[in-house]
Amino acid sequence: MGSTSAPKITEVVITPVAVLDPPLLNASGVHQPYQLRAVIEVHTDAGITGLSEAYGDDPTLANLRKAAPALAGLSVFDVNGLTSRVALALGKVTPTNLTELVGRVSREKTVAQTVGAFEVACYDAQGRATGQRVCDLLGGAVREAVPYSAYLFYRWAVHPDGATGPDYPDDDWGDALDPDGIVRQARRLVDTYGFGSLKLKGGVFEPEAEAEAIEALREAFPEHPLRLDPNANWSVATSQRIAPRLEGLLEYLEDPTGGNPGMAEVARSTSLPLATNMCVTAFEEVPEAARLGSVSVVLSDHHYWGGFRASLKLAGICETFDWGMSMHSNTHLGISLAAMTHLAAAVPNLTYACDTHSPWTREDVIQPGALVWDKGSLAVPGSEGLGVELDRDALEKLHRQYLECGVRSRDDLSAMRLKDPAWERLNPRF
Amino acid sequence: MGSTSAPKITEVVITPVAVLDPPLLNASGVHQPYQLRAVIEVHTDAGITGLSEAYGDDPTLANLRKAAPALAGLSVFDVNGLTSRVALALGKVTPTNLTELVGRVSREKTVAQTVGAFEVACYDAQGRATGQRVCDLLGGAVREAVPYSAYLFYRWAVHPDGATGPDYPDDDWGDALDPDGIVRQARRLVDTYGFGSLKLKGGVFEPEAEAEAIEALREAFPEHPLRLDPNANWSVATSQRIAPRLEGLLEYLEDPTGGNPGMAEVARSTSLPLATNMCVTAFEEVPEAARLGSVSVVLSDHHYWGGFRASLKLAGICETFDWGMSMHSNTHLGISLAAMTHLAAAVPNLTYACDTHSPWTREDVIQPGALVWDKGSLAVPGSEGLGVELDRDALEKLHRQYLECGVRSRDDLSAMRLKDPAWERLNPRF
Repeated sequence: MGSTSAPKITEVVITPVAVLDPPLLNASGVHQPYQLRAVIEVHTDAGITGLSEAYGDDPTLANLRKAAPALAGLSVFDVNGLTSRVALALGKVTPTNLTELVGRVSREKTVAQTVGAFEVACYDAQGRATGQRVCDLLGGAVREAVPYSAYLFYRWAVHPDGATGPDYPDDDWGDALDPDGIVRQARRLVDTYGFGSLKLKGGVFEPEAEAEAIEALREAFPEHPLRLDPNANWSVATSQRIAPRLEGLLEYLEDPTGGNPGMAEVARSTSLPLATNMCVTAFEEVPEAARLGSVSVVLSDHHYWGGFRASLKLAGICETFDWGMSMHSNTHLGISLAAMTHLAAAVPNLTYACDTHSPWTREDVIQPGALVWDKGSLAVPGSEGLGVELDRDALEKLHRQYLECGVRSRDDLSAMRLKDPAWERLNPRF
Repeated sequence: MGSTSAPKITEVVITPVAVLDPPLLNASGVHQPYQLRAVIEVHTDAGITGLSEAYGDDPTLANLRKAAPALAGLSVFDVNGLTSRVALALGKVTPTNLTELVGRVSREKTVAQTVGAFEVACYDAQGRATGQRVCDLLGGAVREAVPYSAYLFYRWAVHPDGATGPDYPDDDWGDALDPDGIVRQARRLVDTYGFGSLKLKGGVFEPEAEAEAIEALREAFPEHPLRLDPNANWSVATSQRIAPRLEGLLEYLEDPTGGNPGMAEVARSTSLPLATNMCVTAFEEVPEAARLGSVSVVLSDHHYWGGFRASLKLAGICETFDWGMSMHSNTHLGISLAAMTHLAAAVPNLTYACDTHSPWTREDVIQPGALVWDKGSLAVPGSEGLGVELDRDALEKLHRQYLECGVRSRDDLSAMRLKDPAWERLNPRF
């Protein structure tokens, strides 16, 4: 049966793109000169096209391309049907290792990533078909401006020799390798975007050095809520050694150590709220976290939780178990930023400023003007759907860049070894 | 900002109705000759009206009427806005005791009931505005026919002397007060509607007598899944005494005893899955149930969980914690039956046949033809929104019946005392 007026999917076009990225340091190594994304266009028989953006690495692309043909004829409203079609199409998938520092891999997460990639485009199409904004289709905007936090990274000024060609356009941020460098970076981000909170990607240097950076940020920005994310690169003992120094300084400490049992041990020994995007990254990990009391803030991310509806499901769980909610980010373009903004606008209990890599991404695939920074926040786009439109010239340029750059999967380890061939990924390092 | 094309609420009309109801026995006493419902019409500036149906007792009506004026100007898509407006309008509400055997009362549940009543009408209006069925707006139908279970009741043939006037039209079901009577009732329900599973409302007679009725049902219907619901009218010790006799006979035992701690004790001593619509009836009760392992099946009910979105939230929790899901029913009319059917169609993990009082309700407020029984299931209505239309003559008639019948709140205890003045509500009785 089904309604006759729903746009049905006719074709899905997946375009991988590569975007310039600075040498941002993290627990896994350093960002490569290019990050990969996939732009997804879901065409329908109503002449409406929905947009989405996903990871662009080879394993993700393979899953997207395997599932895409199965969507033909599906109503853009039928996200339950989307879920079952994708799960069937992927069959016994090999779990995708994104090396994205977003927790362990599983079949459930791989299916969820693939569903989420298409589901965002379906919601964009629903919005265009009904004249509603995506946030309105998700329950209505509880906030018309979504606050983001400044995402601070230890970084080099330029990529190591050999990582890029002679024409590679490095940015002008310079390096940030100590507290002074981090404060300088924060100052520029706050001055430029107006961010009202600051997050430092840690797990890079000795924990004491990163605690020093937090103390320097507190001194320079007395009113800004602060966060530190060591990406599970600390042992339980190290976390318990450093946490007291950070109490009173951080609004939350994100993934100091790995796994729910370890996080629970740390949680019992500190008053700091512990946040995670590594030990609770799929619904199958929720019961253990609830049982152990390992976390008090979960970072949502529609890219790997399974889209908007799955993110609302996570929000319901967080509300029920009295967990705070924030939002995780990987390097992304404007389509994802719009999706993140709509979702964040519609979730009442998403009460922390969201993460975003936006300031580090100098290129985009959307037409300018839809997403404008004001005091560290983005207004929800006012037009229907996600409220963003593809810039076809930009898409073509970034796709050419993808074809030419040679990067096909994220590999922060190899990028790091260009600088230090002996560098090992220790887990945890500290 | 917001979209310009969304229908905005202009007026809410709430019409209480009374429907004939047979003398169905339960732990609280016996059904009165009339059950109360409220029919809700949400009018919009787009000329579209959304329908809903709620409890019709005085406390519910007071809450609905207190909140209704606050909805003016609200987009029918803005269920987040609906929730906050209702919560604000109700302020420090006195929790409503529905005496509906649906668990404890709380402010949260009272707000949820009120939100849910309006939210269903908003979804009906969304569907009418977009040309989509409600199930499609809830994520898409995973089943086009929703199975219901036959709801068996111990009952008298007629209401006690003094409960009704001389013109009261008793039904022709006769009494059912022992295993033979229950089997006879089941046979007629199965023959008439085609129900594929059977639920007995228990907590009325000695537990051994009710176990006998289950055994008689098993003999008469070897293939039908069976359920027994003592409505928490058994002690833990009684539950533990009777449960072994029911193992292998029931697909689940519903609320043998009261409260999560007691249910957890029973759960540890039996292989029977325990279901509930009494100890997990609001999100605030979920963490305790998860911690204690008190239940393995939760009965959803959009009327008191807070509407469709809250029911999806509950479904997400049930899926995450590996709890089964069924659906609870109070006496209801066709608008609620349509709402239940759309919701059940759109929730993948609602895997048990739903409860419904439909066969006991001989009157309705909707135009006939939208909901047709086939093999114990209802096809999801095919037209937009909930797919049902008001029968204004019937509405007027049942509203007149409301005005004349004198019943203003549910009171199974007083109804029982007309037969047995010394009857006390013991908790638990057995």
